[in-house]
Amino acid sequence: MAKQEEKGITVKKEENMSEWYEQVCLKSNLVEFSTVKGCMVIKPRGYSIWEKIKEHFEKTINKPLKIKNAYFPIFIPESFFHKEAEHAEGFSPEVAWIDKELTGEGERLAIRPTSETIMYDSYSRWIQSYRDLPLKINQWCNVVRWETKATRLFLRSREFLWQEGHNVYETNEECEKETIEIIKRYQKLAEELLGIPVLVGKKSNKEKFAGAIHTYTIEAFMPDGKALQCGTSHNLGQGFGKAFNISFLGRDEKKHTPFQNSWGLSTRLIGGLVMLHSDNKGLVLPPKVAENKLVIIPLLFKGKEKKVLEKAKEIEKQLKSFNPILDDSEDHSPGYKFSEYELKGIPLRIEIGPRDLENESVMIKTRIGKEKISIPIKNLKKEIKKISYNMQQEMFETAKERMKSQITNISTVEEFKEAIKNKKLIRMNWCGETSCEENIKDQTGASTRCTLLKKEKPEGNCPFCNKKAKEIMYFSKSY
Amino acid sequence: MAKQEEKGITVKKEENMSEWYEQVCLKSNLVEFSTVKGCMVIKPRGYSIWEKIKEHFEKTINKPLKIKNAYFPIFIPESFFHKEAEHAEGFSPEVAWIDKELTGEGERLAIRPTSETIMYDSYSRWIQSYRDLPLKINQWCNVVRWETKATRLFLRSREFLWQEGHNVYETNEECEKETIEIIKRYQKLAEELLGIPVLVGKKSNKEKFAGAIHTYTIEAFMPDGKALQCGTSHNLGQGFGKAFNISFLGRDEKKHTPFQNSWGLSTRLIGGLVMLHSDNKGLVLPPKVAENKLVIIPLLFKGKEKKVLEKAKEIEKQLKSFNPILDDSEDHSPGYKFSEYELKGIPLRIEIGPRDLENESVMIKTRIGKEKISIPIKNLKKEIKKISYNMQQEMFETAKERMKSQITNISTVEEFKEAIKNKKLIRMNWCGETSCEENIKDQTGASTRCTLLKKEKPEGNCPFCNKKAKEIMYFSKSY
Repeated sequence: MAKQEEKGITVKKEENMSEWYEQVCLKSNLVEFSTVKGCMVIKPRGYSIWEKIKEHFEKTINKPLKIKNAYFPIFIPESFFHKEAEHAEGFSPEVAWIDKELTGEGERLAIRPTSETIMYDSYSRWIQSYRDLPLKINQWCNVVRWETKATRLFLRSREFLWQEGHNVYETNEECEKETIEIIKRYQKLAEELLGIPVLVGKKSNKEKFAGAIHTYTIEAFMPDGKALQCGTSHNLGQGFGKAFNISFLGRDEKKHTPFQNSWGLSTRLIGGLVMLHSDNKGLVLPPKVAENKLVIIPLLFKGKEKKVLEKAKEIEKQLKSFNPILDDSEDHSPGYKFSEYELKGIPLRIEIGPRDLENESVMIKTRIGKEKISIPIKNLKKEIKKISYNMQQEMFETAKERMKSQITNISTVEEFKEAIKNKKLIRMNWCGETSCEENIKDQTGASTRCTLLKKEKPEGNCPFCNKKAKEIMYFSKSY
Repeated sequence: MAKQEEKGITVKKEENMSEWYEQVCLKSNLVEFSTVKGCMVIKPRGYSIWEKIKEHFEKTINKPLKIKNAYFPIFIPESFFHKEAEHAEGFSPEVAWIDKELTGEGERLAIRPTSETIMYDSYSRWIQSYRDLPLKINQWCNVVRWETKATRLFLRSREFLWQEGHNVYETNEECEKETIEIIKRYQKLAEELLGIPVLVGKKSNKEKFAGAIHTYTIEAFMPDGKALQCGTSHNLGQGFGKAFNISFLGRDEKKHTPFQNSWGLSTRLIGGLVMLHSDNKGLVLPPKVAENKLVIIPLLFKGKEKKVLEKAKEIEKQLKSFNPILDDSEDHSPGYKFSEYELKGIPLRIEIGPRDLENESVMIKTRIGKEKISIPIKNLKKEIKKISYNMQQEMFETAKERMKSQITNISTVEEFKEAIKNKKLIRMNWCGETSCEENIKDQTGASTRCTLLKKEKPEGNCPFCNKKAKEIMYFSKSY
């Protein structure tokens, strides 16, 4: 059993979240550190989660909003960056460059940290008339940000995968409306597919995207008291349009600058998924996002192996749509296998032994349940659907309740500091000023997360600067 | 009509293929040149073809052969390249590097031109026992090769998209068998999805992949007398395994080096598709790979617009599964629209006017047909399926017949030179020696394409060096 010990998670989530998280990611076979510093290898089991996210996204965002996929170059000329001043300033510190001496080009080429500039260069040619609008384009690709802070699997790495959408509209109203529509669909994706409850709101001026008018965000809250920004949707206004000479002949036959937004979510979401749901036995995945939704483990007693095995295979066939794993190897005990598939986050386990055979039933246990239950084989498919559905709901509800319980109203600086110490998500009447925000960050390490999309009315004064509160802001430490 | 003239293809395929090809690619809206030298922007209509290829690939290659998708870093440490000597030599000239001073790392980082080295570094950790084999992993990604020759849309660009599969096996037999199985599935993809007939065979020693034992290829033959390598499958033997210390404990409880293959196809395929099928009116796409399989154009005569339009909308609904375009704009004449959708390669056109309405029928024309035919509305869906199926078949058969007619048996050096001048694909009894191959290239500009997988028996002597022929080799100029 020594091998099993070694394989399992050796650190408790509640004791050392950071080490626990890394072990869960690595030992459940989702990902590994690359020999290339700051980069990760997304293994098939991790990549399959990304594919589920993509699939859901195509169905719930691309198709209904009539967004088309395309592909733009990974290289961006340095001069493009500098066309939009705030954007250049925001991204420059973390850009990896291809030297102009190496490439023989007249200027350095950036490896895209985001594609606004290279895409809008094309848009300036594509958009001529109001008939060309709205233009809605999305791209699935890799991006590179040369992080100097310590990297963390999925959460912060020098290369990651994402989608970035870039839409262009005739009017500000359309633009703003869809910028919000998209953040709401991101919320649905996080909550309904991944079971990750999120705050949906607007970023402060300090925290918005470099070059945006304002940024909407979905923010998840991790058990260690840190928020994780899971997706953002930026209203870019006309800034990039002007910088890149995008203009269209309007219905009034005059030239106009269009309105734009951009929006993205990345493989970082997988990190949130792992950290939020998993436990001290290993990975926990909501059934909807698991590649293999169940494992079948035959209990092989001497003399009765054949019949049990036959039945197990029959069940495997019957449950094909759940993409089951049948583990009939004889190298390990059932107990060893139970731990193994718990570590890997398979949502359901079916056990079948000689006694179950007699009763024409099997034992089922969910990854999050305490009890095994007996289910007649003839109802299996229907019951598993029901159990999976309930498990998905339960995971989301549990996480949502936990987040609710983490939200803490504070009204003094002392309460703020105490709450941060206790890993809370702070809800506070706030003045809305950047200088105050910087002061709070310096004093407490916490940053603004967002003001809710669903407006909340502020009262009284800001506890830090004592100015009149203009909004209710959420604060916490963050990834 | 001046605008229409401008929009159409202004050069004939038979007169200036290179300029014609570029116009078709650009004017049918598949792709554009990027401001970044040597790179292309794949527009939504071009990208949708890539998505069809991916979809077909997942269904016919990934799933049945149990290959899993994953993602490896785009950066490769320089030292990895040098572990396999031939590989390093083959790729070094076209690698784009991130300078070590820029990155602060101990060595330069390559932007992947292909991922053998970075993947096999991981494989050396993942593979311990024969139980870990076969390991079959595929990755969809961008790759960069810093071409110094003039770039061509889809066919040669500094960045392109591809899939690269990397499998590992216990035995040489398994490895060789699946290396061949994959090239055969590539053939099916090219022929059945894209209607591109190909030669399936083995590359010469000179033309094989840098680091491979041998390379299988599918080769299409373009109307301008140049071959296009459309996909390759390399048997890597144990070379990379040894270089990267990949080993496994075998069934005999001894350590072994496994056998590997790698295989890929890229967005270059789209270039072949365009060049092979298109004509002087513009793009021609096989129905299977077209995003919009048909366009409905209502013929709007005064006073009868309403009824015609209603019917057109009804038909649009009925034919939803073909993802139809309904063009009911009044800005342009039907004739203008016909040209427009021919240029863009929409496979089928449905016209409906007042007279058709009376007959409860519509007129249908395929992109490759000369005649319009009248089809009763009640049979529409069934008939369109049939017409699309036949069009797909006809395109493939036409291309196949053309390729057959281009293959020319030669038996003297003069015949060889004459055939190359006449844009033929040469079939020749050949000695199989690299020095002879180099001589032929120098004298004629033609290179070896492949010897067929389906063995052909050589006779007599090599016309160039007069040594005994060892195989039948195909030669031509190439992209």
